[in-house]
Amino acid sequence: MGCSAYCFHCLFDHGTPVILVVSSKKVGFIFRLLQLCIIVYVAVYVCWYKRAYQERDSVISSVSTKVKGNILTNSSALGTHVWDTSEYVIPPQGENSFFVLTNAIVTQGQTQGSCPEIPSEFTNCQSDSDCKEGLKEIRGNGVQTGKCVQYSETIKTCEVLSWCPLENDTVIPKPALLSAAEDFTVLIKNNIQYPKFKFRKRNILRHINSTYLKNCTFNHKTDPHCPVFRLGDIVTESGEDFSIMALKYSFRRLDNKNPENNVAPGYNFRYAKYYMNNENTETRTLIKAFGIRFDVIVFGMAGKFNIVPTIVNVGAALALLNLMKVICDWFMLNCLSDSEYYSKHKFKHLKPKDESETFSFTDQSSYGTP
Amino acid sequence: MGCSAYCFHCLFDHGTPVILVVSSKKVGFIFRLLQLCIIVYVAVYVCWYKRAYQERDSVISSVSTKVKGNILTNSSALGTHVWDTSEYVIPPQGENSFFVLTNAIVTQGQTQGSCPEIPSEFTNCQSDSDCKEGLKEIRGNGVQTGKCVQYSETIKTCEVLSWCPLENDTVIPKPALLSAAEDFTVLIKNNIQYPKFKFRKRNILRHINSTYLKNCTFNHKTDPHCPVFRLGDIVTESGEDFSIMALKYSFRRLDNKNPENNVAPGYNFRYAKYYMNNENTETRTLIKAFGIRFDVIVFGMAGKFNIVPTIVNVGAALALLNLMKVICDWFMLNCLSDSEYYSKHKFKHLKPKDESETFSFTDQSSYGTP
Amino acid sequence: MGCSAYCFHCLFDHGTPVILVVSSKKVGFIFRLLQLCIIVYVAVYVCWYKRAYQERDSVISSVSTKVKGNILTNSSALGTHVWDTSEYVIPPQGENSFFVLTNAIVTQGQTQGSCPEIPSEFTNCQSDSDCKEGLKEIRGNGVQTGKCVQYSETIKTCEVLSWCPLENDTVIPKPALLSAAEDFTVLIKNNIQYPKFKFRKRNILRHINSTYLKNCTFNHKTDPHCPVFRLGDIVTESGEDFSIMALKYSFRRLDNKNPENNVAPGYNFRYAKYYMNNENTETRTLIKAFGIRFDVIVFGMAGKFNIVPTIVNVGAALALLNLMKVICDWFMLNCLSDSEYYSKHKFKHLKPKDESETFSFTDQSSYGTP
Repeated sequence: MGCSAYCFHCLFDHGTPVILVVSSKKVGFIFRLLQLCIIVYVAVYVCWYKRAYQERDSVISSVSTKVKGNILTNSSALGTHVWDTSEYVIPPQGENSFFVLTNAIVTQGQTQGSCPEIPSEFTNCQSDSDCKEGLKEIRGNGVQTGKCVQYSETIKTCEVLSWCPLENDTVIPKPALLSAAEDFTVLIKNNIQYPKFKFRKRNILRHINSTYLKNCTFNHKTDPHCPVFRLGDIVTESGEDFSIMALKYSFRRLDNKNPENNVAPGYNFRYAKYYMNNENTETRTLIKAFGIRFDVIVFGMAGKFNIVPTIVNVGAALALLNLMKVICDWFMLNCLSDSEYYSKHKFKHLKPKDESETFSFTDQSSYGTP
Repeated sequence: MGCSAYCFHCLFDHGTPVILVVSSKKVGFIFRLLQLCIIVYVAVYVCWYKRAYQERDSVISSVSTKVKGNILTNSSALGTHVWDTSEYVIPPQGENSFFVLTNAIVTQGQTQGSCPEIPSEFTNCQSDSDCKEGLKEIRGNGVQTGKCVQYSETIKTCEVLSWCPLENDTVIPKPALLSAAEDFTVLIKNNIQYPKFKFRKRNILRHINSTYLKNCTFNHKTDPHCPVFRLGDIVTESGEDFSIMALKYSFRRLDNKNPENNVAPGYNFRYAKYYMNNENTETRTLIKAFGIRFDVIVFGMAGKFNIVPTIVNVGAALALLNLMKVICDWFMLNCLSDSEYYSKHKFKHLKPKDESETFSFTDQSSYGTP
Repeated sequence: MGCSAYCFHCLFDHGTPVILVVSSKKVGFIFRLLQLCIIVYVAVYVCWYKRAYQERDSVISSVSTKVKGNILTNSSALGTHVWDTSEYVIPPQGENSFFVLTNAIVTQGQTQGSCPEIPSEFTNCQSDSDCKEGLKEIRGNGVQTGKCVQYSETIKTCEVLSWCPLENDTVIPKPALLSAAEDFTVLIKNNIQYPKFKFRKRNILRHINSTYLKNCTFNHKTDPHCPVFRLGDIVTESGEDFSIMALKYSFRRLDNKNPENNVAPGYNFRYAKYYMNNENTETRTLIKAFGIRFDVIVFGMAGKFNIVPTIVNVGAALALLNLMKVICDWFMLNCLSDSEYYSKHKFKHLKPKDESETFSFTDQSSYGTP
C-alpha cells in the first residue's frame, strides 16, 4: 500500500508536515513577536529604505563648462593687463575638470642659455669645484655647466644651462593677482543617461529660457534650477552637498585642508607661451599658475523594480521566518517547565528496525491511548 | 527515555518531520504547478538570462585616439588655409575625449588696450555717465574705462580695457568652415582589462595587419573589426548602439537634441595663440571654436561563476519552494470541501500540561483507533 | 474543537512539526557532515573571505601630479636644448593622465604654402595627370594642387597645399632624444573619499613632513610611504601591483605589448607652437611627440557591515541547511535496507474523505498499537 517514488499516481500527492499545535501563551507570544520583527524589517528597511527590490544602474554623464568674467590686474611683470576666460581657464575646452588661475608668477623673455641658479642649499657654491658639469640636480632648474658664478653681489651659485633668466618663485604676488576670480560664473551643462533604463535628462530644465539663463545665478532659494554658479559660492559650499534637479552636484573640497597635515597643499603648475623674437630665437613667457581646480563629478544611481533582487530578499526573509520557528521550538523544548512534556509529543523516536522491531517506538507511551 | 540535548549518542540522531500525504488531485496539481513555476524561473530567468550565479567585474580601460584628415578653407580672416590634425583637434594628445573643430570665428591681431564694446543692451551708452570706470560687466568683454565712445557711425558704446579689437561673435561663418570634417577618420585604440579575472584584450584583433589598418574604415558589414571610424558615420550612428569585438563602443548623442528644449545647445569655447610682434608687444589670435566633442566611453561588465551569488540565488529559490508548500497547505485547509477533515489530521492540538494532562490531545478522536 | 483561523485565541498558538527521530548512524552521520560543510562555507568563505555581510562603496578620488626633472639634448633641429617640465609634460596641468615626451621629430619654420608631398605609393607621380586638384588624400599631408613636382633629384610627387615644409617622419631620432626621462620623478597627490561612509584620506600621511617629501623617492622597502616616484621605476613595475597606504596604485601596462600582435603599438601625437615671423606671417614648429602616457587610475572598494547583505546570506545558508535535511530524508527513504520501514513511519497517507472515510489511514497498521 506504500507509494513507490516513481508511480504516476503519486505525482499529485501533496505531502504536508503533521503539526503539533501548542497552546502555550509564552511560546506563542515569543513566536509572534519574532515574526513581527522580521516582517517589519523586510517591509520598512529592506523594501522602503534600502529598496532592495530594485536593480541598479550607474549614470553615464557628459559635462561641459563655460566660465565667464574679466579681470584687470596691475603687476610689475605684466603692467596693466585684462585677463579673459581663454587666458585664465586651463585647459580652455570647458571639460568637466577645469583650472581657474588665481595667482601667477610670470617670467618673461626666457631663452635657451646659461645663467646662475636660484640660491638654495643644493646650488650655492664657493668655486667651480662645487659644481659638476652635466649634473641634472632634480631640485634644480637646469643642467650644470660646472662653473660657479655670481648670482648677486654676495651669493655665488652654480651656472646652469636652462631657459634663462630663471624663474624666482620665492616671491609670490600678494594679494593674489586674480583674487577677484570669485566673482566669475560658470555655466555647467550636464546630460545624463541611464543606459539600462533608457532614461536621459539634462540639467537645463524645460521651463528655462535663454533670457533667464543669461541673467541668473544659482541660489538655493531664489534660483534653484539655474545652472550658472558663482565660483566664490562653489568654494564656500565645498564640503557640503546640495542638489539641483535629480542630480547632485557636489562641491567638496577633495583635497582636504587638514591643519595637522598641511604638507604640499594646494595646486599649481607651470606652462609657457612660446614666441619667436626678432633675431629668430625662441623666447618664452613662463607662467607658474596657482589656482583652483574644479572637478565636476556626477555620480548617481538609479533603481528600478527587478524580480531577481526581490526574490532574493523575499527568500532570505522566509528563511529567517523559518529560523524563528526553530528558535521558538528550542525555547519550548528547553526553557519551559513542561518542556519534557512538549518534547515527548513533538518527537517520535524510531529505532533502526534490525535492533528491535517490537520496541520501535521509544516513546510509545506518550500517546495517551490505552 | 527522552533524549537530552547534550548526549553524544544523539549526535547522530536524524530528525525528520512526520508527513501527512494527501492524495487530493486538486491540491497536488496546484502544488506541482507552483513548483514548476519556481524551477522554470530559476533555471531560465535567474541562471540563463540574468546569470545571477556570476560575480561581476568592471572594466578598466585605456583609450587613445588619432584623427586624420586635411581640409582647405577660404575665409576673409584667414585667406586660403589648410587645416591639419594638430590645428583642429583639441587637445592634440589623442585622449578618450577630443574635440573636432568644425567652425571658427577667428579674431587676429588682438593686443591689450582699450576699445569700444560690442553693442548690446548692457553696453550701449549715450554719454560717459552711462559707463562706470572699473565695472566688470559679466556679460561684457572687459573692464570699463568710464568713457562712452563711437562704436560705429550711429552707435556709441562704453569703452573697455581688454584684448582689442574685440571679437564680434554675432557673425558665424556659414557654411561651417570645416564642414568637410565629416570625412575625417579616427583610429580608436582601446585596451581593456578586468583586474579581478586577470583578463585583457585590445580592440585591434590578432588577424589585423598594418596594411589593413592603414586602409580600412569601419563598416558594420564589410569591416566590422576595423578600429578606424569616419567621423560622419559616428555622428549618424549616434543614438544607436553597435558593437565591435567584446566591447561596445556606443555613439550616443549625450547632449540630447530636444526640439522643445533647445536653450544653450551645442558646444563651443575660445582659445588663443599668442605672438610677440615686432614692437615686442604680446599679440594674440583669438579663436572661438565650434565643433563636436567625441567622448569615447568604454563600459563593460564581465561575469564569472562564483559560489556566493549562486548559493544566495539557490537559497532564495528553495525558500520560495517552501513558501509554495505553505500556500498549498493554506489552500487545502481553507478552500476545499473537506478542509476540516484534512485539518483534523494535520494538526494535533496540545494543551499545556498543567491545565489538564489527561486531555492533552484535543483531537485524540481524529485517530481512527478505538 | 478545531481552531478557526481567525479566532484571537489562536493568535498565540504555536505550530511545530511533529518530528520522527531516527537513530540511524548512517543517516545521522551524513546529515551532520552536510551541516558542517554548510556552516564552514558560511563562516569561512562567505563571512571571512568574501565579507558578504558588507555593503560596498566606490571611491571618489582626486589626483594631481607633478613631474620634476631637466634634460639636455643635442639635435640637428634644435641644437643644444634644455627641456623642462613645462615643455615635455603634456598637458602641463598635472592631471591624473599625463604624457611624458621621450622622443620628438621637430619640424621648424612651417608656413602655409605649397610643397611636394612626402614620397609614398599614394603620392608619387609621373606627370600632372597623376595628381588631382582638390584631392584630400587621407593618408597624405595636405590638399593636392594638381601639379606633379620634383621632391628630390629622382623622385616626383604631387604638390600639396599645406604647412610647408612637410614633416618627414620616416627618420626617428635614435637614441631617443629624452631617453634620460626615466630619471624624472613624479609626485602623485591623491585624495580619496568614500561618500557613503563619510571617510576621506590622502596619500601623504601624517608623519610625512616637507623635508622628507622634497628628498624622498618611493621604494618598496626603504620608502613605502613616499608619494614621489621615479618614472623609470614605474615603467619597470608596470604589469605588477604594489600598494601604498590603503590605496593601490597600479602601474600596469594597459596597452599590452604582445609580440604576436604588434600592429599600431605605442603612443604618439602631433602638436604645434605658433609664431608670427618678421613679415607677419604665421609660422609654426610642428612636433611629433613620442612618449609614455601615464594614467593614474585609482580604484577601490570599501566595505562596511550592513544588515541587508548579511540577512540575505544568512537566509541563503539556512535554506541550504533545510535542503540538506531533504537530501538526508531522500537517502534514508531510498538507499537504506530498512527504507520502507522508515517510510511507513514518516508518511501517513490520507485519502480524500469522500472516497472512503473509514479507511482514511492507509498505514494505520504502522502504529504499533494493538
